[in-house]
Amino acid sequence: MPRTRSTQPAAPSRATPSRATPPSGAPSPAGPVRPGPGARAALRPAVAEVEDGFWHTRREVNARTSIPQGPGLLESAGNLHNLRLAARAESDTAAEGTFQGAYPFMDSDVYKWLEAAAWQLAQGPSARLAADVERIIALVAAAQRPDGYLNTWFQLVRSGERYQDLRWGHELYCAGHLMQAAVAHHRATGRRELLDVARKFADHIDSVFGPPGSGRRIDGIDGHPEVETALVELYRETGERRYLDLAGYFVDRHGHGLLGGEAYCQDRVPVREATDVEGHAVRQLYLLAAAADLATETGEEELRAAGERLWRAMTTTKTHLTGGLGAHHDQEDFGDPYELPNERAYCETCAAIASVQWSWRMALLTGEARYADLIERTLFNGFLAGVSLDGERWLYVNPLQVRDGHTDHGGDQSARRTRWFRCACCPPNVMRLLASLEHYLATGDDDGLQIHQYVTGRYTSGPIAVRADTDYPWHGTIVLTVEETPTDRPWTLSLRVPQWCRAFRLRAGESAHDQTDAPVEAGWLRLERTWTPGERIVLELDLEPRLTAADPRVDAVRGCVAIERGPLVYCLEQVDQPGGGLDDVVLDTTRPLAVKHRPDLLGGVTTVVAAGRRRDLPGAGWWPYRPAGDGSPAAGEPVELTAIPYYAWANRQDGAMRVWLPVS
Amino acid sequence: MPRTRSTQPAAPSRATPSRATPPSGAPSPAGPVRPGPGARAALRPAVAEVEDGFWHTRREVNARTSIPQGPGLLESAGNLHNLRLAARAESDTAAEGTFQGAYPFMDSDVYKWLEAAAWQLAQGPSARLAADVERIIALVAAAQRPDGYLNTWFQLVRSGERYQDLRWGHELYCAGHLMQAAVAHHRATGRRELLDVARKFADHIDSVFGPPGSGRRIDGIDGHPEVETALVELYRETGERRYLDLAGYFVDRHGHGLLGGEAYCQDRVPVREATDVEGHAVRQLYLLAAAADLATETGEEELRAAGERLWRAMTTTKTHLTGGLGAHHDQEDFGDPYELPNERAYCETCAAIASVQWSWRMALLTGEARYADLIERTLFNGFLAGVSLDGERWLYVNPLQVRDGHTDHGGDQSARRTRWFRCACCPPNVMRLLASLEHYLATGDDDGLQIHQYVTGRYTSGPIAVRADTDYPWHGTIVLTVEETPTDRPWTLSLRVPQWCRAFRLRAGESAHDQTDAPVEAGWLRLERTWTPGERIVLELDLEPRLTAADPRVDAVRGCVAIERGPLVYCLEQVDQPGGGLDDVVLDTTRPLAVKHRPDLLGGVTTVVAAGRRRDLPGAGWWPYRPAGDGSPAAGEPVELTAIPYYAWANRQDGAMRVWLPVS
Repeated sequence: MPRTRSTQPAAPSRATPSRATPPSGAPSPAGPVRPGPGARAALRPAVAEVEDGFWHTRREVNARTSIPQGPGLLESAGNLHNLRLAARAESDTAAEGTFQGAYPFMDSDVYKWLEAAAWQLAQGPSARLAADVERIIALVAAAQRPDGYLNTWFQLVRSGERYQDLRWGHELYCAGHLMQAAVAHHRATGRRELLDVARKFADHIDSVFGPPGSGRRIDGIDGHPEVETALVELYRETGERRYLDLAGYFVDRHGHGLLGGEAYCQDRVPVREATDVEGHAVRQLYLLAAAADLATETGEEELRAAGERLWRAMTTTKTHLTGGLGAHHDQEDFGDPYELPNERAYCETCAAIASVQWSWRMALLTGEARYADLIERTLFNGFLAGVSLDGERWLYVNPLQVRDGHTDHGGDQSARRTRWFRCACCPPNVMRLLASLEHYLATGDDDGLQIHQYVTGRYTSGPIAVRADTDYPWHGTIVLTVEETPTDRPWTLSLRVPQWCRAFRLRAGESAHDQTDAPVEAGWLRLERTWTPGERIVLELDLEPRLTAADPRVDAVRGCVAIERGPLVYCLEQVDQPGGGLDDVVLDTTRPLAVKHRPDLLGGVTTVVAAGRRRDLPGAGWWPYRPAGDGSPAAGEPVELTAIPYYAWANRQDGAMRVWLPVS
Repeated sequence: MPRTRSTQPAAPSRATPSRATPPSGAPSPAGPVRPGPGARAALRPAVAEVEDGFWHTRREVNARTSIPQGPGLLESAGNLHNLRLAARAESDTAAEGTFQGAYPFMDSDVYKWLEAAAWQLAQGPSARLAADVERIIALVAAAQRPDGYLNTWFQLVRSGERYQDLRWGHELYCAGHLMQAAVAHHRATGRRELLDVARKFADHIDSVFGPPGSGRRIDGIDGHPEVETALVELYRETGERRYLDLAGYFVDRHGHGLLGGEAYCQDRVPVREATDVEGHAVRQLYLLAAAADLATETGEEELRAAGERLWRAMTTTKTHLTGGLGAHHDQEDFGDPYELPNERAYCETCAAIASVQWSWRMALLTGEARYADLIERTLFNGFLAGVSLDGERWLYVNPLQVRDGHTDHGGDQSARRTRWFRCACCPPNVMRLLASLEHYLATGDDDGLQIHQYVTGRYTSGPIAVRADTDYPWHGTIVLTVEETPTDRPWTLSLRVPQWCRAFRLRAGESAHDQTDAPVEAGWLRLERTWTPGERIVLELDLEPRLTAADPRVDAVRGCVAIERGPLVYCLEQVDQPGGGLDDVVLDTTRPLAVKHRPDLLGGVTTVVAAGRRRDLPGAGWWPYRPAGDGSPAAGEPVELTAIPYYAWANRQDGAMRVWLPVS
């Protein structure tokens, strides 16, 4: 019987976290977000090798299809063409030929793909991928100006206007993605070609930007945060403190009206004073990821408190059930509290990715399980819906509803999957997260190993190695085997009990315990003991499908429920329902939900079958409003409804879709 | 006792309408939409002089504040500056100085203001207004190029690029507003200065645009319909058939991909083939107004059928309770059927105006009362909310909800009233509709007079004059006195019984009749007799406040009702409710609604007082979704709710607002 740490309270969130030193002897794992040696992280990333199961499949598709197709898509979209043109130019003047692409941040797609490819190369060698990476890095290096500046839009189209359109120019944004790619490439391969390019550009930026009185020419910020978190990573990889300071400067200068004070650009209110997330969702989240990085590296309490406050504001009032973020197509921004529309949910795929990145940093900073809860929900739903099952088509926006009779005008914001976008930020962003996903799954500290997300594979932190075998999220059983352990001292295996989980069982050897025996402290089930190699623990999470309702202030889903099972949000797609569309469907909540495993469907999913009715609709007439009480009868023809996981929608024929279902 | 025409069925909507000849001896009233002598209109506009009451007050504010402030606002926004610059230029080349304003259609604001001022001058002389009009017309005339072309954006900024950006250039759109202003000025004052400018431009356009094979240089349409309906009016005013043919050509060429096939530009599907309204709402509605004009002038059945079909599609599935139209901020467009959001309702003020213009033309074409029903609803709600009670501030979008904690970023799409907009299309559009409102209230035909909207004043059609006295919409009693009538032959007084009306009484002399005695034929109460001067009829419409529900497919308002009284939609504003915001308010539908006349409030309104509760909200926690059935208790502290007419919202302090109220 495992001992639990029920007598020892979880650290309160406001307490200064104990400093987690790297487990002795552990190699620095080649992944993103590696807090520096002096960082005040409560937890440090551990390595998880994903060997089989749900995420393994998705990562295989990413490795075999999405990433290898990247260079061809970047070629046909013009991104590589732009680099070649810029490399040919003698100076910052327009070269022969024309910049291709609709946006000034075309370069960032290349950098995000390079980052994805680098993380992929860390999984194992691939001659073809390595050659592509080498070729494209050479292009990037050749396009760099002698002084370190690098941005093909400005070099080719707006020569002489460097840093004169910080609101929309995306120069520092692109630089940030270059730095992240360079860090990834260096960590994954040990090679310096791209890191040298990134450092040279970072040094150039550092020579130009700084606060009044610093002697620098420009006191400014980029309209799209990204360089901030990238500079922290560059600091981590190089040990160059100037990069951390520059990141801090950029974070500090948001909210002071340098770009006119727009919320869109994260320029309305300083991060430390903000009380709610606002403006362009991805910009907000990248900025908050940087704030969390800085709080981790500097130990600053005010930034940490701001992160905790804003994260709670976001999750409590501005997060869709899928983890999706962003309520408005217009401006791609957060809406008001509880403004969470369905068909017009924006939920940009990049915002889901940014949310994972921010929450992961908050998890490292605070050690709290809630961040992993949101990461899990986001990964399985709002994020994963962004890429098709075959890895070849994408969604930029991720609505929670498509109506009967929906007219889709195509374009980047289409509710139909697209091969590539004019603004192609999302696809390579998905690629880089999937390729580095094993680095967001577990952590270690001086007390032991914390498993945040359950996969089949091997979790390693210092001298500890734990193997997990599971068919999660289809089945709730997770078999954990201690493979390597010091045998002379106790340590704690911390297992996250998901926020959605209403019941679980824990078995160790012959004994079994339910949650009353194994108390969960703020989401963590703590098992402390001196472990023996080969020792086995079985965690069984109850995956009964459930109906979920929303806070009554979420007007968009009043009178509706959603079907969930485990971490998965479910939806109805028209193609699975007998007899037409979805707008007349009502769920019968008095009848039980049934689970049906369907290996034949959508690459193998567990469906949830529910009882519903097709409601009788009001008759003809030109006015859809009527005296209250004249209501249409709720009853109607019974219909068996088949729900599929939300992440798998839009992989078959076009049609209506609903997450939230009216109840009778 | 009045005879009713219950034995004579209303004309079916598909039947070819009888041709309404102008009542003999009637002067052509100086108003918009005057079907030509050969037109196939079922009805013809009658004159209504608005002398007192609700609309008189609103028109007085328009005449005394809004319109007189126009020239100063057009000056400070740069519109007049642009005309002066263009007038100074020797040719189509950039003059000294810079074009002012953010949009290529700055000229149209001037033209719409001129149209408003012209209709205002038709009400009675004003030396100052006449001087302003004369001065600005002189500016317009001076800016016109010798060949008739006139567009300050292209003359000053994009010289040499005439008609090369039809998708966004708005040249024909501006030309259309010029023509409408010119027609109004000529009708109102008999003066030709502006009409000559408009004709010269129209002739120029006619010399450039035409179908393949016509010998014209360009086969094209403007991205923003407007010139089409304007050309029909120019034809009506001048008798020049070429203008009607040119209007027909432009209408016909929409939907053939000349602008790339976008729904936004009304270029995806030809009008005659369309099955639903789509794309940019104002563009769609101006185009359909032109289609109705053409059907009226040409008698073409196919266009008429398209108008009837599309109007029904719009009202059944895409119209907000307020008559507001347009579901998306992004692209300002119609959404899917039944996609009618509240806080993100777009409901552009211009779309409400365009809806009135289209419906009025359909009413003339068909004679059916339903069009006047929508006009009434739109005028009292979705349209009138666009201007503040003092006539000095405006709403561009007209949401049906503002949340607690709403963050308003200002700008044209703000939920707070604004003095003027960067895109200032709405304010002068409101001015021109209010200044010409008396022309949308009644019609005549060979059978008599039809009263569409009830005001205190005098309705005249040929030899018939009927006086109305009413405090509508605050009270339901309308006293109608026949002032002038032929005494030797019968005619029919047709009174519209509004679609919202559940009960009415009709009194004539000593006798009284309820609706069972006086049958309503498709919205018209027909009173046919040989009338006597001084004869009096009293119509009493039941104004009991009522609760209204929506078709269950309108997801946004599931579980909610709205308060209405007569033609007025009501809303809650935070400032009127005790104890805080609105997001926790639930309406108690078991308790009666009470009416309270409040002469002190908002210029004098009738409020509706309802019983509600402040619901207990879920406790703290970071996730707003919970197992269904764990619901928060519906009960809570009782609260007396005071609802005001929607048109009067946003005239006091900022705060939350709701039209649709959750029910307990």
